[in-house]
Amino acid sequence: MEVLQILHMNQGNGETSYAQNSKVQGKILSIAKPIIDEAVQKLLCSNIAPIGSMGIADLGCSSGPNAFLVISEIIDAIYATHSSSSSSTEFRVFLNDLFSNDFNTIFMSLPAFYNQLKKEKGDRFESFFISAVPGSFYGRLFPAKSLHFVHSSSSLHWLSQVPPGLDCQAGGRALNKGKIYISKTSPQCVLDAYSLQFHKDFSLFLKSRAEEIVGGGRMVLSLMGRSSSDPSTQESCYQWELLAHALMSMVLEGLIEEETVDSFNAPYYAPSEEELKLELENEGSFTVDRLEAFEIDWDGGAEISVVASGQRVAKTIRAVVESMIESHFGKDIMDDLFRRYAELVVDHLSKSRTKYINLVLSVIRKD
Amino acid sequence: MEVLQILHMNQGNGETSYAQNSKVQGKILSIAKPIIDEAVQKLLCSNIAPIGSMGIADLGCSSGPNAFLVISEIIDAIYATHSSSSSSTEFRVFLNDLFSNDFNTIFMSLPAFYNQLKKEKGDRFESFFISAVPGSFYGRLFPAKSLHFVHSSSSLHWLSQVPPGLDCQAGGRALNKGKIYISKTSPQCVLDAYSLQFHKDFSLFLKSRAEEIVGGGRMVLSLMGRSSSDPSTQESCYQWELLAHALMSMVLEGLIEEETVDSFNAPYYAPSEEELKLELENEGSFTVDRLEAFEIDWDGGAEISVVASGQRVAKTIRAVVESMIESHFGKDIMDDLFRRYAELVVDHLSKSRTKYINLVLSVIRKD
Repeated sequence: MEVLQILHMNQGNGETSYAQNSKVQGKILSIAKPIIDEAVQKLLCSNIAPIGSMGIADLGCSSGPNAFLVISEIIDAIYATHSSSSSSTEFRVFLNDLFSNDFNTIFMSLPAFYNQLKKEKGDRFESFFISAVPGSFYGRLFPAKSLHFVHSSSSLHWLSQVPPGLDCQAGGRALNKGKIYISKTSPQCVLDAYSLQFHKDFSLFLKSRAEEIVGGGRMVLSLMGRSSSDPSTQESCYQWELLAHALMSMVLEGLIEEETVDSFNAPYYAPSEEELKLELENEGSFTVDRLEAFEIDWDGGAEISVVASGQRVAKTIRAVVESMIESHFGKDIMDDLFRRYAELVVDHLSKSRTKYINLVLSVIRKD
Repeated sequence: MEVLQILHMNQGNGETSYAQNSKVQGKILSIAKPIIDEAVQKLLCSNIAPIGSMGIADLGCSSGPNAFLVISEIIDAIYATHSSSSSSTEFRVFLNDLFSNDFNTIFMSLPAFYNQLKKEKGDRFESFFISAVPGSFYGRLFPAKSLHFVHSSSSLHWLSQVPPGLDCQAGGRALNKGKIYISKTSPQCVLDAYSLQFHKDFSLFLKSRAEEIVGGGRMVLSLMGRSSSDPSTQESCYQWELLAHALMSMVLEGLIEEETVDSFNAPYYAPSEEELKLELENEGSFTVDRLEAFEIDWDGGAEISVVASGQRVAKTIRAVVESMIESHFGKDIMDDLFRRYAELVVDHLSKSRTKYINLVLSVIRKD
């Protein structure tokens, strides 16, 4: 699977679109908001406060309301801190995501977004220049020392590729049999392959950003993670476990081949705080200002029935993973698969309120 | 009609898409190529040759093969001139078009384009950063003094709005009755309204670019124009005249209302060389290096039968104007309208080889 060309949140504004099914990611943004505010404030009050031109990037912006929510939050934070001074600063805002992200839908909403900004912020808004930079953040995206503030939410848990070697057979048996991510039954080599791929990817991410961000510049990164050192705990992989169950139920009914499930593995990894810290130390270009873990309900904490909640969770996951699942299993089984998945999620949530762990990291580029 | 939100070349890669029907615009690009090459060469050999970082923008990039053709031409010209020196220069390439342009299709082709560049140019390609800047070029798009080379082809003949006042009634009669652009039968006030709107738009374009381009930086602009001082000559408006005929034939058959035709006017203007020169002098920020006029066959000069040629012309025009025509007349009549249009074009081309006049302008930002 060519992750960098296939992976995208579901496009458009329809029923299964990411735009309509990304409330959890919106919740994650709102939880990180105070940390974003603080980082912007510290940046603008520091002695490297950008004068003349400030470069801001949102990496993995996706499409839909969350893409604008992030920019709004950053712009609000800038205005709150920056209200009197340096009114002549030009703000260059870059929206990044992979090549197949639905940028058209973002762009169609830009005129309304610009109008709202003008209404709220007045003439000073004239100096905001919003552009899109398609490509993988596991590599260079921007000119050297061109950025002052970088944000990324709900993106860095996606790996650049499925860890190599996972589709190998050990003695005729698939390594991660009947599973699509790390599971309690996965052998150690599967856990190691995932951990190694994350290590490589996150380290390349840090190295690339280190070249692009000016000394004293800041990043706030939020991603799915785990609080335990064991990567097979429920909190970090049970959404995949249930999707594997749904797929295997279709194998039992002869709707898909078992080999097709065995050969699919999600390009995803939920790291621990320690893994993040270790990578940051090894790479060496950034100082950690904050690293916090938050618990998030699978449904974003909505006050709704278990059935409604389970269906919402299934729709949220579908909007995120469908591009990959469809490219491997084909379009035809999607509705059936996610109907089964919704049932399994409802059943699970009626017994246990499993939560995601979201890690939020605020770092400073060393001089 | 909200031109800035509606106008876009037909999206995707289908039969009526701009990607499949933009050979004439490709021909126009190839005619301007020597002028682009010369401008890039002079820029890189001048004493303002950008060191470290060079900003390049293509304004009105559209989607489809032409979007990449322009960047390729500019990159080739840079490599030809720049082969030995300053290998550490970073090139920032900005693709601009209106908010409803199909950027998704461009982005999906970017990985292949990047791979081809890497193959042809080797490692030095690493320093190209391509991004998209959606918005109207009749206004600021980029930070101050951030660009060194600006290109625009087949775009500046589009006005920011339909000239105001054209839908007024004079004594109960529509001003531009039965027509959708300047025509031999149009009263002088229609010609004046179009000329005034072009004057305002082009002047705002120059003023905006003057702020964004560094002193010594260059622009190559190519657009539809005319060689006569009379804006109602066949060479500058007959494609619209025939489209009006097609619409009026549908009025006669009761398929559309006459008032609907009377109230539509194209947001388009084909200026003369003198009008361009006058605006450049009035605005005052740019020196003219070259201004040339080229004749282009309606079908781009293909060696095909009159019928095939007429159909190609009709498809080319449809790919360009359908977004506007559809927003005014509704989706249902599009196939019928452009079938009639193709017949009229075939009939016309069998009697006369009408040509477009394309103006190519190469200018330098004064210090």
